[in-house]
Amino acid sequence: MRVAQAIGLPAENREAYIRYHAEVWPGVLKQITDSRIRNYSIYVLGETLFSYFEYDGDDYEADMAAMALDPETQRWWDTVKPLQRPFADRPEGAWWIDLEEVFHLD
Amino acid sequence: MRVAQAIGLPAENREAYIRYHAEVWPGVLKQITDSRIRNYSIYVLGETLFSYFEYDGDDYEADMAAMALDPETQRWWDTVKPLQRPFADRPEGAWWIDLEEVFHLD
Repeated sequence: MRVAQAIGLPAENREAYIRYHAEVWPGVLKQITDSRIRNYSIYVLGETLFSYFEYDGDDYEADMAAMALDPETQRWWDTVKPLQRPFADRPEGAWWIDLEEVFHLD
Repeated sequence: MRVAQAIGLPAENREAYIRYHAEVWPGVLKQITDSRIRNYSIYVLGETLFSYFEYDGDDYEADMAAMALDPETQRWWDTVKPLQRPFADRPEGAWWIDLEEVFHLD
């Protein structure tokens, strides 16, 4: 399962966001792996962040819920979410917004 | 090697672009594979296209040049490029613009 998402990143937060992501906390990386996320990349273009990852577990909702309950991940989100600017038209409860896949070739 | 890129897609061309990409011509798919591109996805968000792929060859410039010389790929580009709207501030000679990777975890 492939997931691509986007979120805003105000220009004034770009440097801080990049700096944090150059040294993501080990506990956060471990939780990502424990939640069966693979090949996870985040890119920036202007004031937009794009993420791409693959999920290789069999219960995405449960694995994401486990991530959200992890205290170190919560501290990480408390640190980086204020740097982001979510899209106003995102779905209820969403932070990043899901992109629509229009093409794929293995 | 991972590559992520973006380009504009005017709203009025969205439907046609998606329709073409639901049935990409076999010769185009073959050339992508011959040029050592793997795990290639294209996503859309509003008026922006986001692409992600991996390159597993050992001469990216040469493999991209081979793609550009393929007659079927040229016909494909003649079909889909008019639907796209490249960013005005792209580098000389570029069509899609490269994104900057800020995070990666295998």
